[in-house]
Amino acid sequence: MKIRRSGRLVDMTSYLLDHPRVLVSLSFFSDRYGAAKSSISEDLGIIKLTFEQQGIGSLHTVAGAAGGVKFIPYASEEGSHEFISKLCDLIAKPERLLPGGYLYLTDIIGNPRLVKKIGLLFATVFSDRQVDVVMTVATKGIPIAYAVAAYLDVPVVIVRHDSKVTEGSTVSINYVSGSTGRIQNMVLARRSLAEGSNVLIVDDFMKAGGTINGMVNLLEEFKAKVAGIGVLVESKEIEDRLVDEYISLVRLSEVNVKARHIEVEEGNYFQFMKPLSLGDEEEIR
Amino acid sequence: MKIRRSGRLVDMTSYLLDHPRVLVSLSFFSDRYGAAKSSISEDLGIIKLTFEQQGIGSLHTVAGAAGGVKFIPYASEEGSHEFISKLCDLIAKPERLLPGGYLYLTDIIGNPRLVKKIGLLFATVFSDRQVDVVMTVATKGIPIAYAVAAYLDVPVVIVRHDSKVTEGSTVSINYVSGSTGRIQNMVLARRSLAEGSNVLIVDDFMKAGGTINGMVNLLEEFKAKVAGIGVLVESKEIEDRLVDEYISLVRLSEVNVKARHIEVEEGNYFQFMKPLSLGDEEEIR
Repeated sequence: MKIRRSGRLVDMTSYLLDHPRVLVSLSFFSDRYGAAKSSISEDLGIIKLTFEQQGIGSLHTVAGAAGGVKFIPYASEEGSHEFISKLCDLIAKPERLLPGGYLYLTDIIGNPRLVKKIGLLFATVFSDRQVDVVMTVATKGIPIAYAVAAYLDVPVVIVRHDSKVTEGSTVSINYVSGSTGRIQNMVLARRSLAEGSNVLIVDDFMKAGGTINGMVNLLEEFKAKVAGIGVLVESKEIEDRLVDEYISLVRLSEVNVKARHIEVEEGNYFQFMKPLSLGDEEEIR
Repeated sequence: MKIRRSGRLVDMTSYLLDHPRVLVSLSFFSDRYGAAKSSISEDLGIIKLTFEQQGIGSLHTVAGAAGGVKFIPYASEEGSHEFISKLCDLIAKPERLLPGGYLYLTDIIGNPRLVKKIGLLFATVFSDRQVDVVMTVATKGIPIAYAVAAYLDVPVVIVRHDSKVTEGSTVSINYVSGSTGRIQNMVLARRSLAEGSNVLIVDDFMKAGGTINGMVNLLEEFKAKVAGIGVLVESKEIEDRLVDEYISLVRLSEVNVKARHIEVEEGNYFQFMKPLSLGDEEEIR
């Protein structure tokens, strides 16, 4: 279909946003719109500039015969500070406190728009790592995992606490919950993870890190590697944290269940996030 | 920030795609780009036309002082036939058969791009209904629920089979699994659903419909209403189906576990889907 530049810009934007991290050749667009590659190239220049100015992400150019353009979703530093500070305000409500120092996060995790943004922030900070799959444990980590995975264009695998008939054969491990000290069970379908995969682990909440540590151990059973660990909320400094390197958006700095008081601050996110280098004048060919 | 038309089209497209079903005023865009409302209006006309031609969705205009424009994601009929037929091919593999006539769907549900498209199809077919919240039961329905909810711009609530400490007080019911005849338990956090809500129920797989019927019963406890029921895969005709009206994308028409043979066809989706009326010449003011 022949289509004019203005319509082309709209459709290309939509297409690229819908295909993050997919290498799209100039010929694909040129065929799609019946337009010359030089025009497509100009269009991509406009899109790249706008995406970077508006903090939507970046377009990477891959040169050569097998080349093309790739949309890399990327949250701006400014937007991320704003968003995390909004999250902190949302979380710092005493009525969220539940017995045992747990937090009611169901409403936040139940909001697809917030979850998408959380996913974008993790996709940004893990942007440079080789990630083949995102892993989480049922239930509350699942939406976050999908949001990250959609931006990274990789599949999700879900670890369960119980084995289910619809998953086929499974691998099961025991682990010790760091906060309660109890032994728990963790199960993953054998078919769901290939050997040698690079796995990004995400979850909604981390106290001592027992659950995440359990996932790390489970990965060993699959001969898979940890590409990174991301948690939405980490609870206040715990001395014997079972997990070494992780990235958190929000940290509970003070929890007093009796006084019904919580204090919330930015997690360690910005220690890891690198701002997108703008003004990259690389030409789109 | 002053920005030229080409950049404006890119950013407006991205903004609208990111805010489905949100009413955005012309003034918002006019302020965002330092442009006259008449120019914004022309831009929106181009975007509307492209969205409809390319099967991305539609822009609805709301007139008057509190008016503006609303992006309604909408899958085209042609694209939906193509997608469901692709899903049927993916599902019709004998190695998916598990004991008891269950299907291994984990890889399909683990693919965020497929899940997003499944969500778009449900958002399309339920487009005209009043939906306040999407509900599913842990675990495999969750990604589908989020995908639908993101397009409908409503929250998700997740029913669990066990009560968890981080959810606060809960409402619990017993229900009978239609296929196994066993009594099971279903739990929903009290805080997570407001009285009188219109609830769209979605799940990955329906046999006799016991689980979905359980959710319908749970809604009664919350004085909430069923806005619709959507399932990815329904198993072949069962005489005593516990659920009346539901919409399925895919139907297992023949399952023979012994012979390791399955036959798969389109579900009843197209009996409910109405194609988007194109050529709607309504002017965007």
